[in-house]
Amino acid sequence: MSYAARRTALRHELQAADLDALLVTDLLNVRYLTGFTGSNAAVLVDARGDDATVFCTDGRYLTQSARQVPDLERVIDRPCDVALVKRARGRLGFESHRVTVDGWEALGQAADGAELHRAGGLVEKLRLVKDEVEIEALRMACAAADRALAALIGHGGLRAGRTEREVARELESRMLDHGAEGPSFASIVAFGANSAVPHHSPTDAPLQAGDLVKLDFGALVDGYHSDMTRTLVLGKPADWQRDLYDLVARSQAAGRAALEPGVAVSDVDRAAREVIARAGHGDDFLHGLGHGVGLEIHEAPALSKAGDGTLSAGMAVTVEPGVYLPGRGGVRIEDTLVVRESAPELLTLTTKELVVV
Amino acid sequence: MSYAARRTALRHELQAADLDALLVTDLLNVRYLTGFTGSNAAVLVDARGDDATVFCTDGRYLTQSARQVPDLERVIDRPCDVALVKRARGRLGFESHRVTVDGWEALGQAADGAELHRAGGLVEKLRLVKDEVEIEALRMACAAADRALAALIGHGGLRAGRTEREVARELESRMLDHGAEGPSFASIVAFGANSAVPHHSPTDAPLQAGDLVKLDFGALVDGYHSDMTRTLVLGKPADWQRDLYDLVARSQAAGRAALEPGVAVSDVDRAAREVIARAGHGDDFLHGLGHGVGLEIHEAPALSKAGDGTLSAGMAVTVEPGVYLPGRGGVRIEDTLVVRESAPELLTLTTKELVVV
Repeated sequence: MSYAARRTALRHELQAADLDALLVTDLLNVRYLTGFTGSNAAVLVDARGDDATVFCTDGRYLTQSARQVPDLERVIDRPCDVALVKRARGRLGFESHRVTVDGWEALGQAADGAELHRAGGLVEKLRLVKDEVEIEALRMACAAADRALAALIGHGGLRAGRTEREVARELESRMLDHGAEGPSFASIVAFGANSAVPHHSPTDAPLQAGDLVKLDFGALVDGYHSDMTRTLVLGKPADWQRDLYDLVARSQAAGRAALEPGVAVSDVDRAAREVIARAGHGDDFLHGLGHGVGLEIHEAPALSKAGDGTLSAGMAVTVEPGVYLPGRGGVRIEDTLVVRESAPELLTLTTKELVVV
Repeated sequence: MSYAARRTALRHELQAADLDALLVTDLLNVRYLTGFTGSNAAVLVDARGDDATVFCTDGRYLTQSARQVPDLERVIDRPCDVALVKRARGRLGFESHRVTVDGWEALGQAADGAELHRAGGLVEKLRLVKDEVEIEALRMACAAADRALAALIGHGGLRAGRTEREVARELESRMLDHGAEGPSFASIVAFGANSAVPHHSPTDAPLQAGDLVKLDFGALVDGYHSDMTRTLVLGKPADWQRDLYDLVARSQAAGRAALEPGVAVSDVDRAAREVIARAGHGDDFLHGLGHGVGLEIHEAPALSKAGDGTLSAGMAVTVEPGVYLPGRGGVRIEDTLVVRESAPELLTLTTKELVVV
């Protein structure tokens, strides 16, 4: 979908909310609507059309904004939110889920003919369902992560004595080799008992024979994030490791199988969680099942017990159950997938058999 | 300064603002006050003391928070802001410069005995002046960047044919070699005419003989950011390149010389800007002179025409004038320094002579 088409879709939301315009100040929403990738910008999306819509950035991005946003009137000013609110008239929505209390006051003082209305989440509502341009970026981001992991393993990157930090660094470097702009978040690399910490930060702990190896990482491509976790074993797995792995793998498969348009997100969580609970490990699955992924690494919908709403075709989500046994180790298996009318489309293609290195 | 001492300093601010407690939800402020480095947390700082102060994070950080925040009562819940507002009583400040309009509403609904008061920027006020623990982290961050640049040049990393992207990647990799947790922002590497774009993103453009090479980059150490720009030439500099360089270097020296406690930040900007304006390039210096640096890459104070306030000893700032000639090239020279009672302490030690590679 073109940026102009996304702005047209937003105008339907403006009409439904009886707004004359929306002041978009969230940078990711600005990027989604215009393609601008700089660090300071806003856009005043007028319900009447692109002819009345104005983009703002500051002098650092004069050249870049001319290239990236050739189709909208541009204002070069700072701060952008204040510059644009002065030009607005009528019922003006603002992103109340992003604008701070102090920022709201500043907008109110600068407004001259516009009446401010809370309108949080309108662009995010569009972003929930990815268009094919976005899905292609997610595919490329997932492919960079898949290839990096294959190269890491293939080049002997997981061997006794290497530290968590070294492995994380090699993984991130190999993602760059395979087309990533960068990692999509700080990689989690956890060996042995550290794998029982869901969000472990890499340390200088060395890999040892018999360790579980939990790798949770992703790549950034065109602003889109991939997210994948694989858990491996260095050497021959112990029975408890294999049992734990099989349990989480069955839970993860149940979660993936539940991904269908119209299904409540809490039911997807339940489908995976029940498998683990029936095995007596309900209390060792410490987090939600998954989350939406796109321009943010964590975005709506949340696949969790308390999550609201239902799935739609085109949503991109993770499915990532885990069981964590303090002092022993943990297993998490995570894919990024797109909900489709038929079966979900798997974007992270690395095998989910227990890989023994 | 210990975390407990920082909380004590904050309590003086609470008393001055007649608040019974402050709900700190900004993650960097939480880190500053407690040492916690996870991605979800809040702290309710009670004016009465640490015995009445409560820290909150979620289940993912059970182990980490026990290690990092052993000295405060801990609540494991989600969302943290709501969990803590329920426990507050009396006049409760909240960070109105960070809490969104929607978040404020949620806090108001959850509050049970607390009266919400806008109290933005109280912790940032403390953070303006760095303590010696912070300055040591900044020193290490700047040293990692200095060493990375020296190693890049020493190993022939700047040679004809290499792309901006390749150089950026090597620079970032070498910062990791020298103790950085990561780059402190996306490195700017700009060759030739690209150097005229103040915030250029690295491309596949190859380095050519005679090019200006603008490198703006920094390292992250213990959560603290360094920030340095050097502009070099590949091969013999043309006269215009040398003249431009000398002009910016004189401006930068004037800016550094103006860094004294009690001086208005706008006067520091003026000291550097006048040098460039007198040479007829005032319109080619497109941005402010500098900014504070610490847990954020850009924080208060802003050294700019419109900047408010005066310098104090212990503030860490950048001084970074630049002159940009569209289609030809630009020069920026930037240091990170600490304002001291005597001369400012320079943290970025790489030479500011025009380096010819």
